[in-house]
Amino acid sequence: MRMVDLIEKKRDGQELSTEEIKFIINGYTDGSIPDYQVSALTMAIYFKGMTEKERADLTMAMVESGDQIDLSQIEGIKVDKHSTGGVGDTTTLVLGPLVAALGVPIAKMSGRGLGHTGGTIDKLEAVKGFHVEIENDEFIDLVNKNKIAVIGQSGNLTPADKKLYALRDVTATVDSIPLIASSIMSKKIAAGADAIVLDVKTGAGAFMKTLDDSRELAKAMVRIGNNVGRKTMAVISDMSQPLGFAIGNALEVKEAIDTLKGEGPQDLTELCLTLGSHMVYVAKKAESLTEARTMLENVIKDGSALEKLKVFLSSQGGDASIVDDPSKMPQAKYIVELEAKEDGYVAEIVADEVGTAAMLLGAGRATKESVIDLAVGLVLRKKIGDQVKKGESIVTIYSNFENVEEVKEKLYRNIRISTTKIEAPILIHEEITQ
Amino acid sequence: MRMVDLIEKKRDGQELSTEEIKFIINGYTDGSIPDYQVSALTMAIYFKGMTEKERADLTMAMVESGDQIDLSQIEGIKVDKHSTGGVGDTTTLVLGPLVAALGVPIAKMSGRGLGHTGGTIDKLEAVKGFHVEIENDEFIDLVNKNKIAVIGQSGNLTPADKKLYALRDVTATVDSIPLIASSIMSKKIAAGADAIVLDVKTGAGAFMKTLDDSRELAKAMVRIGNNVGRKTMAVISDMSQPLGFAIGNALEVKEAIDTLKGEGPQDLTELCLTLGSHMVYVAKKAESLTEARTMLENVIKDGSALEKLKVFLSSQGGDASIVDDPSKMPQAKYIVELEAKEDGYVAEIVADEVGTAAMLLGAGRATKESVIDLAVGLVLRKKIGDQVKKGESIVTIYSNFENVEEVKEKLYRNIRISTTKIEAPILIHEEITQ
Repeated sequence: MRMVDLIEKKRDGQELSTEEIKFIINGYTDGSIPDYQVSALTMAIYFKGMTEKERADLTMAMVESGDQIDLSQIEGIKVDKHSTGGVGDTTTLVLGPLVAALGVPIAKMSGRGLGHTGGTIDKLEAVKGFHVEIENDEFIDLVNKNKIAVIGQSGNLTPADKKLYALRDVTATVDSIPLIASSIMSKKIAAGADAIVLDVKTGAGAFMKTLDDSRELAKAMVRIGNNVGRKTMAVISDMSQPLGFAIGNALEVKEAIDTLKGEGPQDLTELCLTLGSHMVYVAKKAESLTEARTMLENVIKDGSALEKLKVFLSSQGGDASIVDDPSKMPQAKYIVELEAKEDGYVAEIVADEVGTAAMLLGAGRATKESVIDLAVGLVLRKKIGDQVKKGESIVTIYSNFENVEEVKEKLYRNIRISTTKIEAPILIHEEITQ
Repeated sequence: MRMVDLIEKKRDGQELSTEEIKFIINGYTDGSIPDYQVSALTMAIYFKGMTEKERADLTMAMVESGDQIDLSQIEGIKVDKHSTGGVGDTTTLVLGPLVAALGVPIAKMSGRGLGHTGGTIDKLEAVKGFHVEIENDEFIDLVNKNKIAVIGQSGNLTPADKKLYALRDVTATVDSIPLIASSIMSKKIAAGADAIVLDVKTGAGAFMKTLDDSRELAKAMVRIGNNVGRKTMAVISDMSQPLGFAIGNALEVKEAIDTLKGEGPQDLTELCLTLGSHMVYVAKKAESLTEARTMLENVIKDGSALEKLKVFLSSQGGDASIVDDPSKMPQAKYIVELEAKEDGYVAEIVADEVGTAAMLLGAGRATKESVIDLAVGLVLRKKIGDQVKKGESIVTIYSNFENVEEVKEKLYRNIRISTTKIEAPILIHEEITQ
């Protein structure tokens, strides 16, 4: 087999066989196939796409390129959730305790992140003492006992995907649905999930800006998962504005607490109930999605979801008393209100620009070396469609430096007030199960 | 400027600017832009093409990536000819003396080649004593004095093209008209030509198999040349079967001699007169193509073209007496006739397979290290459309080894005899001047 022939085959729109895809991924991982051939191939894939079979083969070849997490010692159906990324997305912090309270085992491997705010681990570090440096055995035991635990990324998962992603990033071949879908699914499968619930964001603040693209990506991932024997479904949710109110690490933990109490933002609550219903249902803890939703509403009402959060935090060394008193988490020195300059309705909140404003405050990492300020960030007081009066606060800015003029200007530029009434955007666009 | 943005721009079908193309070619030549970004770009070009302006810019960026030959000390309009390659193509050996006899300066830089037979220099080495290792000053003097000289390749011409071609070869991006056209034209322009006459082959034995593709390539090259100030035109000539009769080094030199005497194969003679007319006309030695053709026919008739060949050979140390006695060139030990197995008409001669048969005899190089046997090769006795009787020779095999069964079988497989009458193929398909 010669790589140049396989590039030509794909270039000419033919389907690569399972063996050919394995040859490519194994050769790329072990260095026998050079970057310059793989980048030509990914560009050919950009133009010619991949068949359903090729996508499944690529995913599994990447899964098999490195270590795979063995969660077989955990009882029950291990369900993982993945969001395609957006701004102010606190769903993971809410969903974990929420579905674990119903007995769904959540064995989460998580990382730190680049972006507007930190990754799940960064956020949880706003809870004093909480740590994810635990041994694998302890991790398994915690999940079996409490139904929820988080461990830091370890092992050599999907090295082919890491190498391929880095190459795509510098060769303008990131924006390829089959490659994006295979990349995401390979990581979830290598991390040991039996079933996967996907939250595909759509809109200005999402990686996929249009509903068509989001649907295509969602379908691609759902089919890969189901084709390789992992029950997979996807929700397409709105990211035309940030989700919930909080954008920042401690601020998002507090928002998660509020949501688990039943006092969270309406959109975040609704999305968590939707995604959670699918997780509970796929884990066979409910007979139907409707039943699952009722069960989730009940564990919020009766306090057991909140109790699960406390158990989870303290089981990994965290100070669970922050749940009852969130002010024990890092607090910003300066709290500044962004006041509306005119009467009207919020018409637009440019999510990624607002996210960048939070990063300017120190809530996220621009580079791997950046240090996150856990206390700072933004809390939206108004969302799209809300009426606003001149002088009323639109956003509360939490900062550790006094001069926030640059942040304010950025927010004013990216939150548009209209004089005419605006409808709030639809939150859940579609649910895709096949 | 970031290379990844330029790849994306081309991927999305936008036109790259002159500066952007220079940035890419200079960066690739000096190693600051890696292979893996350039191969992604060439694959994007494969799918999205290049505008006329981009093609001219790419060509000149490659010309400027290395040395350029200065022919300004040679009087007159320096015309170069380029054939896109085929089987048994002896045009260069004929055309040089033919047009030089009319005062058109032929300052040829030539190389050795991989393929069915050697390059022009290899062929000329069948003439005892002939050598191309001459100093640049001597080369210029010879052209001024005799109107014709050949020098071996020297200097660092179009290094960007060499690097790019090697990359395209292993990334399935060879078959891109803009890239092929720019590659050929950059070499001709760097070699110092004022005007360029192109012989674009078409048919089964050519790189371009269809007339449409050949026309597209011819137009692309003609436009590049004219856009960068080099008068350029192209002839599309047939390569559905080998050109002329001879395929082999000394055999082709003898065929060139025959043609310059007016006793050559009809197709080779006709193609040389057509290409030669354009060369004479573009060099402003004739008022019209018709006049140029008459002048060429005259220098064949009056012996001055043949005399020019003798002067050329002896001026570079060659034994010109081979012109009157070609048997002084290397001779094969064994001469074997391939006899027709049945009566009929020659319907097909698969040019590249017949060329490979010549290479099996030792006429060409399979790898850079191969040693060419100058004596051996094939002479076709019949061409497509010719009637043939059982037992009559179709091909004469010149070999230095006795057992030529493998070669004979290959020839039988690739020369098809039909019982119905077949038309000879059209030789000159089109002439393209803009």
